[in-house]
This record gives sequence, C-alpha cells and structure tokens, in this order.
Amino acid sequence: MTTSTKPANTGKIMLVGLGPGSQEHMTARARAAILEADCVIGYATYIRLIADLLDGKEVVKKAMTEELDRAIEALDRARLGKKVAIISSGDAGVYGMAGPTFEVLFQAGWTPDSEIEMEIVPGASALNTCAALVGAPLTHDFCAISLSDLLTPWPTIARRLDAVAYADFVVALYNPKSGRRAQQIVEAQRLFLRHRDPQTPVAIVKSAYRPKQSIEFTTLEKMAEADISMLSTVLIGNSNTTIRHGLMVTPRGYANKYDVERGREGGKYARAGEKSGHSLSTGLDGWMATVKASDRSAAELAADYRLPEYYVAAVLASAAGPDDERQAIDA
Amino acid sequence: MTTSTKPANTGKIMLVGLGPGSQEHMTARARAAILEADCVIGYATYIRLIADLLDGKEVVKKAMTEELDRAIEALDRARLGKKVAIISSGDAGVYGMAGPTFEVLFQAGWTPDSEIEMEIVPGASALNTCAALVGAPLTHDFCAISLSDLLTPWPTIARRLDAVAYADFVVALYNPKSGRRAQQIVEAQRLFLRHRDPQTPVAIVKSAYRPKQSIEFTTLEKMAEADISMLSTVLIGNSNTTIRHGLMVTPRGYANKYDVERGREGGKYARAGEKSGHSLSTGLDGWMATVKASDRSAAELAADYRLPEYYVAAVLASAAGPDDERQAIDA
Repeated sequence: MTTSTKPANTGKIMLVGLGPGSQEHMTARARAAILEADCVIGYATYIRLIADLLDGKEVVKKAMTEELDRAIEALDRARLGKKVAIISSGDAGVYGMAGPTFEVLFQAGWTPDSEIEMEIVPGASALNTCAALVGAPLTHDFCAISLSDLLTPWPTIARRLDAVAYADFVVALYNPKSGRRAQQIVEAQRLFLRHRDPQTPVAIVKSAYRPKQSIEFTTLEKMAEADISMLSTVLIGNSNTTIRHGLMVTPRGYANKYDVERGREGGKYARAGEKSGHSLSTGLDGWMATVKASDRSAAELAADYRLPEYYVAAVLASAAGPDDERQAIDA
Repeated sequence: MTTSTKPANTGKIMLVGLGPGSQEHMTARARAAILEADCVIGYATYIRLIADLLDGKEVVKKAMTEELDRAIEALDRARLGKKVAIISSGDAGVYGMAGPTFEVLFQAGWTPDSEIEMEIVPGASALNTCAALVGAPLTHDFCAISLSDLLTPWPTIARRLDAVAYADFVVALYNPKSGRRAQQIVEAQRLFLRHRDPQTPVAIVKSAYRPKQSIEFTTLEKMAEADISMLSTVLIGNSNTTIRHGLMVTPRGYANKYDVERGREGGKYARAGEKSGHSLSTGLDGWMATVKASDRSAAELAADYRLPEYYVAAVLASAAGPDDERQAIDA
C-alpha cells in the first residue's frame, strides 16, 4: 500500500519483497525502491543477494531472529527523514517483515496520517517460485503453514495440519526444519498420513533460483527422511497431484467437465450434463438440488459428502430465498 | 522451471505470470520473456495490460473459459519452432495457465526431453498483491480457495471452507462471485460463521494496482452484502487479525514470546520461560512434555487443545526416541 502523498522531506519505510533472490525475478518496483533508499535493512543473506544495488547506502545487516530490531532501526531513520528499505526474500507480507514492522509502528503511535510514509512492494513468495520450478502443483486450492514454533504454539500448528490434510489442500510447508527443530516435520507427516495416501507426491525445493538450488521429489511416506533445512520449502500435493517426467502437476479439474482426450474445449466436447462457462452439475446449485431431492437424512448425507452435519442440515432447511436461509443459520 | 538447453531452432512455451497488471510490478524475467516471444497468447484483458510490449508479435486473444484452447494454440506454434508466451495475471501457477498447459502437453505426448522447451516465470499472485495493498494480513498461515464451481464440485469447496474456518487460517477467496454465481459467497459466509466471530475483519480488493482499484473493509457478518465481482479477491482474517487506521494486520506472534511494549528483541525482554531463537514453551517439545506429564486422558486433552484424539493418543504413546514413535504410529 502507499499512503497519501507527503511533503518531500518526510521519511519513508518501504517493505520490499525480493522474490526468490535472483535479480531476474525481482519486480521493477522492488529494484527501484532499493535504489531510491538511503538505508537498506535486512537479514545478512538477503543483503548479499542485492550487493550490487547498495553503493553509497547505509546498510544494516541483522541476524535471523532480530525482526523487531530491524523495524525499530527503520523507524529511527525514517523519523530523521530518511528513505528506508526493509528487505524480505519472497514477499514481504508472507511470514515477512510487514507484520513485525506494523507491530512496531503501531506501538510507536504511527498512523497512515503521520509524517512517515509506508509502502509495501509485493513479490513472488517461496510457494510461487518453488511451484514454478517443479511444474504446476498450485493449480488448485492450497495453503501455507510454517512449522516454526518459535512464535506459534504447537497445538495451533498441529490443528491446521490436520484440517488441511483432511480437506485435501495442496500444502506448502515454510520453515520445515532447522538444527534445533527436527521433529516438527515428523509430526506433520504423522498428521498427514492419517488422511492422505502414503504415496502422495512431495517436492522439496532448496535455495530456489539461487546457485545452490536443489529439487527432490519424494512421497509423503518418505518425506521425513529427505534432506530438508531452513532453506527448504516442502510442497505436498493433493489427492490428484502426480509427478510425471520430473514434473509435479495438480489437475485444475478440466477432466470433470470436458472430454480432455478429445481435445478442444468450448462446449463441443463437454461431458453429458455439463456446459462450458457454467457451474458443474455437482456445483452448488446442482448439489443443493440433489440433496434436497434426496430422501436421506442430514447425517447420512453429511457422511456421504464428508461435510459437517450442521451444514447439510442448514442446506436442507433452506428454501430458495436468501431471507429464509438467513433464518436457517440463526436457528 | 527451465528444462535442459535445446538447439536454438526448437520451439519454446513460456508460462508468464504478469503480477497484478501494472508493469511496475512485473519481474524483469516476465518482461524479457514477453519481449523474446514470437507469439503471445492470453485472455483479452491481460493482453491489453501489456499492449506496448507486443509490437511485431502474433497476438492470440482468448475468452475466459478457453484455457485448454490457449494451451493447444501454444503447442501448435511451438511445434513450428516458435517461442510462445502464454500470459496469466498474478502467478501462472496459481489457478493460472500452468495447469491446463501441462494437461494438454502430457496428452499430446510431450516430455521435458522432447523438442519443445518449457519455462514457467513466477509472479506475485493476487493474494500477495492484495495483501500488500491492505497492510499485512498474510503474516501467519493462510490459504487460497477458489469459489468457482465450474470445474470443482461444491462439496469439495465447502469441505475446505469448513476446515480452514475451524483451524483459524487467514483465507484468500479467489473467483468469489460472478454474474451466474452469487450464492457461493453466501455459503462461504455461512460456513465461516459457524467457527468464527462475526466481527472477523474482511478486506475486498478489486482490480489491485490497476486504474479502477478499490478496497473495502468489512466484517465476516456483512461480507456477503459487499460489492464483490470476478475482479475481486476477498481476504478473511484469522482470530487475531485487526483493522486499525485502514490497515489489516495479522500479528506474527511476537507478543507470545516478547514483551513488545518494552521494545527490543534479542532475549533481553523475552517473557518468563521463553528464550530468543528457541521454540516457545508451548512449542512442540514443551507441549509434548506438558501432555505427557498430565494425568488427563487423551480424550480430555484432545478437547482442551482442539486436536484430534488419535493424534494426542499417538503423542502420549510415544517415548522420547524417534524409533519408539515410529512404532506408535504403526500401532
């Protein structure tokens, strides 16, 4: 975001996502933001990735755990009228510096109307760049979970792993393992194996788009034995994901509607009962009609469709109009 | 991904993510890929965003539902030795053209060793760019769910909505509503309200970083009444997300470990029992020690921590060593 225009002599904090680290994959705005900064603050590894852009600038290198310090140092300098770029690898908003920076700014009484301007420069996050390297795993619903319990209680993380394993998301695990945290990935595997096929494809991408890049394909069953570090992102497929010819691909679902083997889309080769540009026959309207026409109980339907019974009951209770449905929710 | 180097006269298909649409937020590689293409294929709206890069190129504009056709046309031209850029807004891998393109290529017998080279150019997806515009909502675990039931059965979508509402993810809804699909967002709201506070912050971002950009903040309770279209992304916060001064921020969790009000990080102001650079006292090791030392049953602990009973039972059964834990899983 960019707040309203300020007088030229006021300070500015720019939260800059570098993307994977190779400058080829940095946005034009990220590059320009670094070039116009008086001061660049970041984790030492990321500072090295943009060393050639730093001539004549103050550079503040910080250790991995000093996120709040980075934000405080940025605020100190912005108050003096400096332009400060706080850099993150990937996207500054995804487990990046945007969070701690706002925590520090709000704590200091900053508002968007104050003298310091804020700008967030988005970039491709690790899940985007790792996905691009392995094929097309994120073509369907996905989620990101950090296995780091340095700031998050383990029950919260475990609850999330269990929920998305059950609901068949493609999952990107951030911070999967470190020297001190070797068991979290084993626990994640245990939670996933309760719901998913042991042969579910898994990709482990390390140092994406950097000189030491490595990609390993494995399965859920063998995931915890793979070479995983803090520089790795782990991608776990959904129940339809495959690895073929060294490419991890999750189908978008065209085969649900079209006879893909016959080739062209556009209605001509839509399957019986399906229509191009329209919801599937098993989409919301079709599914609602099916359950309402059924003579089965909410409990039976809930078990069939693996949905919570309250939801199926609400759908069965709903008439056509939204007002009646609202009452069904309240009931 | 880039496959191994091919002779210069063979064709190439590049899947290019444009980012939000303003060229400022396009990566250097995305721009270069479009410039080096002989042919650019995409949805008409996205073609317009890069009109000034298209001089002298063949341009193939396609309608919204013709994804497989776009891939087939790209393959036809690549077989003639052309370089083809298939463009997607955001990231080509996230509900983008990477999926249908691989479906078509595999169907045609393509492998990475064949004469046609493939490259995927990652970009910032809608969730990254919309998040950057509203503040810092994605600093903690999040997921993306498309509400489109054109290719996905509704029970699959509903099951995912229910799971992530329960497990307190920040959620980005893609394709939330269209002329023909107005009820899906109402159903999403119904599923969320079962688990989440009606006051949960929601941001609706339309046409991010484009001339008609608009941002609306609302609550879960009022979400379905907001102005939402196919050009909108809906961001639903988690239970800690707030909207202050027009900024949507999800805390990363520093307050779990540090006395943020006293300022500096680095161990000095860590809360009693917590240590900088180490897992929380409620992290995996600490939590396991707590439940093992407890005299409560697995069922009671599962209810307390809102975790599945099988998981708590497995943890209780596990001894210290990984070998013993493996047996506990197998048992």
